[in-house]
Order: sequence, then C-alpha cells, then structure tokens
Amino acid sequence: MSTSAASEIPSPPHVLILGGGFGGLWATRGLARADVRITLIDRTNHHLFQPLLYQVATAGLSAPDIAAPLRHILRRQRNVTVLMGEADVIDVDARRVRLRSDAGEDSFDYDYLIVATGATDAYFGHDDWEPHAPGLKTLDDALAIRRRLLSAFEAAEREDDPIARAAWLSFVVIGGGPTGVELAGTLAEIARHTLPREFRRSNPAQARIHLVEAGPRLLSAMPESLSASARRQLERLGVDVHVGLAVTAINGGGVVLGDQHPTDNAGVGRAVRIDSRCVLWAAGVAASPLGRQLDVPLDRAGRVPVQPDLSLAQHSEVFVIGDLAQLMQADGTRVPGVAPAAKQMGAYVASAIVTRLTGKTTKPFRYRDFGNLATIGRLSAVVDMGWIKLSGIIAWLFWLAAHIFFLIGFRNRIVVLLDWAWSYWSYQRNARIIVGADTPAKNDASETNDG
Amino acid sequence: MSTSAASEIPSPPHVLILGGGFGGLWATRGLARADVRITLIDRTNHHLFQPLLYQVATAGLSAPDIAAPLRHILRRQRNVTVLMGEADVIDVDARRVRLRSDAGEDSFDYDYLIVATGATDAYFGHDDWEPHAPGLKTLDDALAIRRRLLSAFEAAEREDDPIARAAWLSFVVIGGGPTGVELAGTLAEIARHTLPREFRRSNPAQARIHLVEAGPRLLSAMPESLSASARRQLERLGVDVHVGLAVTAINGGGVVLGDQHPTDNAGVGRAVRIDSRCVLWAAGVAASPLGRQLDVPLDRAGRVPVQPDLSLAQHSEVFVIGDLAQLMQADGTRVPGVAPAAKQMGAYVASAIVTRLTGKTTKPFRYRDFGNLATIGRLSAVVDMGWIKLSGIIAWLFWLAAHIFFLIGFRNRIVVLLDWAWSYWSYQRNARIIVGADTPAKNDASETNDG
Repeated sequence: MSTSAASEIPSPPHVLILGGGFGGLWATRGLARADVRITLIDRTNHHLFQPLLYQVATAGLSAPDIAAPLRHILRRQRNVTVLMGEADVIDVDARRVRLRSDAGEDSFDYDYLIVATGATDAYFGHDDWEPHAPGLKTLDDALAIRRRLLSAFEAAEREDDPIARAAWLSFVVIGGGPTGVELAGTLAEIARHTLPREFRRSNPAQARIHLVEAGPRLLSAMPESLSASARRQLERLGVDVHVGLAVTAINGGGVVLGDQHPTDNAGVGRAVRIDSRCVLWAAGVAASPLGRQLDVPLDRAGRVPVQPDLSLAQHSEVFVIGDLAQLMQADGTRVPGVAPAAKQMGAYVASAIVTRLTGKTTKPFRYRDFGNLATIGRLSAVVDMGWIKLSGIIAWLFWLAAHIFFLIGFRNRIVVLLDWAWSYWSYQRNARIIVGADTPAKNDASETNDG
Repeated sequence: MSTSAASEIPSPPHVLILGGGFGGLWATRGLARADVRITLIDRTNHHLFQPLLYQVATAGLSAPDIAAPLRHILRRQRNVTVLMGEADVIDVDARRVRLRSDAGEDSFDYDYLIVATGATDAYFGHDDWEPHAPGLKTLDDALAIRRRLLSAFEAAEREDDPIARAAWLSFVVIGGGPTGVELAGTLAEIARHTLPREFRRSNPAQARIHLVEAGPRLLSAMPESLSASARRQLERLGVDVHVGLAVTAINGGGVVLGDQHPTDNAGVGRAVRIDSRCVLWAAGVAASPLGRQLDVPLDRAGRVPVQPDLSLAQHSEVFVIGDLAQLMQADGTRVPGVAPAAKQMGAYVASAIVTRLTGKTTKPFRYRDFGNLATIGRLSAVVDMGWIKLSGIIAWLFWLAAHIFFLIGFRNRIVVLLDWAWSYWSYQRNARIIVGADTPAKNDASETNDG
C-alpha cells in the first residue's frame, strides 16, 4: 500500500504520524474530520498516560491501568491506520520513512509528516550508569523499577549481615524534578506504612530514601515557596533531601555525590558516598534520536528547532511536536517539555494541516500554560496555577481530580479510582508483584541488579 | 539465624516449607495456631491464583489481579517468616536445605520439611520446542504469551503478503486439557469479537484457532458427554479441533502433526502441517526438579511417591504435597494434580504435624473430589460434579462464582469482578498491553518470536 504521488484516482493526502504519545494522539484526533488518510506508527501498541507511570513503578497501579491500545482508542476514527513499528530512517527529500524491522511493510511515503517521538533518559555522557540507575519513561521501565524496589526489600529480609542489609534498605533517587519527587515520596510511604508489619527479620521502616538534586532547589520550574513546601512535605515523610550535590559516580554498590558549591580553600568540595543497591534515575531527558534524521542542526539536548507553525524551515510539510521540538515563542519563553504542551502542539498541527489544505495560512502556535503540579505522596502535593498556589491536601485533591479527568478510557478511570480509594484507606499497594525477576542479585557490587 | 539443633533454650520446632502455591500456602495457614516456627520460601514474591492464569495470558486480567504477595497474605500470622529464594539442594540426612543464590542467608536447618514446589511444563524430550511453544505456568509465562498473541495480530496488520499474513493469523494450541480448551476458546473470542473493528488492513475475524489433542477426546478427565459438549461449544466459537493428532515437530514457522491412529496400509498415517507464528503449549506437565533431591526413586513424570500420610518412607519428617507428590489411595485411585488436591494436602500435612507434636498418630490422607470444571469462553463451560453435569451458560455461571469465591484477597475479588463485568458487557479485554516487547519478529521462520 505504498503511497504513490502519481496515482490515477486522486486520493486524500497521506499524513504520517510517528509516535502515539500525547502529541501524536492529539494530532491524530484533531484530523478525525479532515479529508486525509492517516497512518499512526508507534513502537508499542499502546498510548501511555505517562504522568502516572511512577505509580506503576511503585506498585500502586498495574500497567494496564494507565495504558490503552492505540487502535482501541482510535477504533471509531475510520481515516486512521495504526501500525506497531519503529521509524528508523527519514528521507525528507524523498518524503519517505523507513521502519526498523523488515516484518511487513517497512517503507511509507507521506504528504505530511508529524514527528512526535518524544524524549528518552539522558545520562549526560555516563551511559555506563544506566544499568545501575534505570530511568522511568516506558511501561517496561516502570516494571523494571518495580521489580528492583520490591526485590531490594526481599533481599534485605534474607540478609543476615547488618551492613549489607542497610545497603539493600537504602534507596537513592537522582533528580529533584516532579518524577524524582513523586518517586521519593511514594517510596518513603511504602517503606514507612505499607510494608513494616509484613517483614519479620528486617524493618522496612528503617529504610533510608535519598533524593539528590544538583541544582539549588527541588522542582525548579515552580516558585521558590512551593519548592520549599515540597521539601518540607518530603522531609516529613522521612526523605533525606540533598540539594546542590551532583552525582559523580554510580555503580551496583551505590553512588558518589560531589558538592556543586565547594567551600574549602582548594575548591574541591566534599564528596559523599551513599551505599545503595537501588538507585533510580529521574535527572534528565534527551530528545528522541529520530531528530537526527531530519537534516537540521539540533539544540544541545538533541531537540529540533521548529518554525512558529511547528514545521521545519526547509520542509514545511514536516512538523515536529512535543518533547522533541524546540520552540522559542515571540515573548522569549521556551515551550516546556510537558504533556499539556505536547497535546496543544498536536491539536495545533492538526488544525494547521486542515487550514493549509484549504489554501489559507496559519497563525503561529501559542502555548497556553495552565499551571504546574507535582504530587509528593498520600495527601501531599504542590500546585502552581500562576494566580493561585496550593500545597498539602488541597493540592493533592486538585492533582487527583486533574489526573483522573485526563486519564484516557472509561474503564481505566473507574479502576484507577478504585485502586486509589483502596490504597488511601488501607495504605496498601495493589500491584506488588515481581515479574520477570531472577533471584536477588549477588552480593557483588560490580554486578548489575537487573534481574 | 541458622537453626541449631543444640540450642540452650528449647525453641519451637522449625517447619520449612518450599513453595507458596496452593499446597504450601494451605500448609502454612494450617499451622497458624501451632507452636512451631515456619519459614516459607518461594521463588517469587507472590501466591498465584493459577486457575485464572489464562486470563492474564489472553489480556483479560492484569497480573496483579490474580496474584498477591505471600508476605501480605500472611502478614498477621506471626509464626511465619516469608523469604524469596529458590531451593537448590536438599540434604535429607542432615535435615538442611540450601538456596540457590548466595545473597543473604542460604542454608536452613529444619525439623519438618514440606516440599510443595509443584510442576513445570514438559516437552517430552523436545526441549527445542519450548522457545516456539511457550507454556503457561507462571505470571512471566502468561505475560510472554500475551505479548506473543497481541504481537501476532499487530504483525498481521503490518504484513502485505497474504500468505505471511495468514500465518500470523494462525494460532495453534497444543493440548486439549482444561488449559488448552480455555486458551483456544478465549483466543477465538478475541479474534471474532474483541479486535475486528480496530484493524484496517487485516481482519482478525479470519484468524484460525487450532486446538490439537493427541488423545481421542478433549478434557479426558471428564465424562465423554461433557468432552463432546466442550468440543461443540469450541467449534461454535470457530475453533478447529483436532483430536488423535500428535505434534511431531514445532519451529518458528508452524507445527507438524502426525496421525495417532494410522489407517493406510503402510501404517504411516497422514501428516498435517499448520503454518503458524504463534504456537502455545498446554500439553504436559513434569514435576518440579526438586524431587530429585529427595533420594527416592521417582515415577515416570518425576513425581515423588509418598506414604499415606504424605511423608517419605525413609524420612517421616519430610512431606511432599501437591503436583510433586504421587499418591495411590487405598481405593486404587491416584490423587490428581489439581488445585483442590494441593490445598487438601497442605491442610492435611499441617494437621499431621500438629498431631505428631502431641505424640499421636495420624489417619491417612483422603482426597475429596468435589468435581471438575473447565471454562470455554464467554458463557460457555462444562462442570462435572459427579452427581450433576452442567454445560453452557449455567456451567459458566457456576465456574465464575467458584473462581471469584476462591480468588484470594478482598481487593482482587472486586477488581476481577469489575473487569469481568466490563468484558462481559463490552467484549473488551482490559489488559491488551504489550510489555517487554521488541518489534515483531522477522519473517524468518527459523527465528523465535520471543520478543
């Protein structure tokens, strides 16, 4: 079904969309009534509600609670074909995309291309850290982190040596953005409230949860007052918050942190070592490597600079949206890499394509910032809506309502609500299942604990 | 905390239980009020409700719906310590068990040992078939099968070549016992009812589902009338049922079946080849390899022959229960390898240990057979209670009630009920999420599709 530009019967233009995250899915939906043929290609078979991924990683929700098959979401939209595959090569001159695998059709021509492949974890040149400090971007990541967390408590229970046991009960979360704050807060709750009565030889309540941020404060996108509130709420949960300390080494036995603001005469700064068998990475994202296929110079984070209408300067039929796009707005602010921005960009590009098909010109994209929110734990969160700032239980209720409202799929909303109601009343976590696990890793710090 | 036989303060006897399935868990619970110390060791962190495993494999339920952490189930039973680990060596003379990993304590002395490590898939000497025809024994198995099923439909949608597409839409289930019948029936429903409107290029309703049984009929443990009913119900769902055909070869491109009852003059029998990219194994179980550690001759299936009180002839302090035990009862019948038998054995051994502690002797174990049931699909099942035989919707309602009643854990029951109610009304499956997947396997029949 290769799209031929010179077919006899004029067929509607072909819009090829790479990535079924917030950007790609909102673009697809925005074209529902347009006279186009859409092909939506994603590496996975599902759209993922990424804001709740940390709940899967911390065993509060099961994977299907926060993900739904793309073809199920789009089943009634007859102008879209959903395919599972991974784009490998983009030839912007030939207007053709090649997929990685050779199973089935692997080459697609397009009239319009929307690249929405998002971001991946960045280890700032330390790719050797990855096996010891997994990131949280996909469902597979979340299940791997869940396995590692739960296995650490299991290993502590089996361990006789108090020093080795303490290392199993020491958790380090690198990165003080929303994901790091959520992970650290939830981990502290699990250790303090969910697990203690179930262990006989070790005491999960003695677990140390370290949250490490290289910058001067947590949640740097938020006002300082909310950063301070988030820190207080975390410390109340028992999290050790370290700011101004950057990671200088990670291996299977722990992390080394270096002071960012050395105060001694030699300017060397103190170094802190934390023994830990479970280090989690929430410190940085890099744009999807597919940006390199577009024949344009990328920014330092690998993002693709786009025109005000989100297209490429040299190829107006190619759009880049979501975390992969780099757009400086007229007012000098940069559009942030967050879910609402990706949705808005997706919807904008859909309407831009419809407008172009009618021969008109489009207004530039404008990001509408509805605010910023981060949850910390049970009944703890911070919300910044610009005109109003909330923290504590009110912020948490706001966060809960917003997330359930935006979660895709009727069934998911009920089940997620039920699961949450249950965790709220009981402090229990419903998905404490270790799958894909080997027995706990050996006491050899040079080994990865991947399992 | 190694158990020393010569400790100064007499401590309660140590009961070591290997395996947290139905047998091991029921034995542990049966000892709740006994003056013993219990250590329960399982390879995983959870008890699995195995009768619903096929629902996880077919994307109807999520893994946490049918599994709960053993230490959570047993949190209020203060005389038990739950450890995650895998027994490797049993020294019945020294009364000591060694665990596989060297993380933490790895050697446990016991006063009583209960071996309840169950069964695994058996490929009858064809271990090379395993990668092409995964079995269904653990949650990991179920998730691997789910990935393979869903990926096959995805690959068919991407495939242009009609022959290759037909092979992706051809599914073979080997084994006509309860698991094979459940898998084939559910697969047919998914192909006919759940998926069709969501695909644009391929038609899942054209999928062929083959169920292969070497014996003369399906569900051989049931009366012939119910076997015939099950076959009719499956055929109504669109399953191709092949009886009297045994598998002679399996590879990544399909299976070859050979006639078990050759009728031609040469006695060679016909051979049937079915092209398929998704073959599932439900044909045989072998006892856990741990039986070999017990220094007794095993039966042909690797099971351990036990005394009428489920202990070993040479070591009355060692009990073997569940699928690993081979017990011929006084009436000449053999206790079957089913969940109710494992539970009854577990409860029996617990009371036998309590009785022995009081110096009395125990009555032999007697298996109480409450009947036999198998589900086929939505509103289809067969039930054999001896005095009553049911099939169709009545049998299905009976099956549903029994399974929800027996499912462990309050939360699980509600969520499972909700999930089922939803699938019932909508024909939808709630867990259609491919995780741990690569892109669909290449068109090379020699490759495994493991992903």
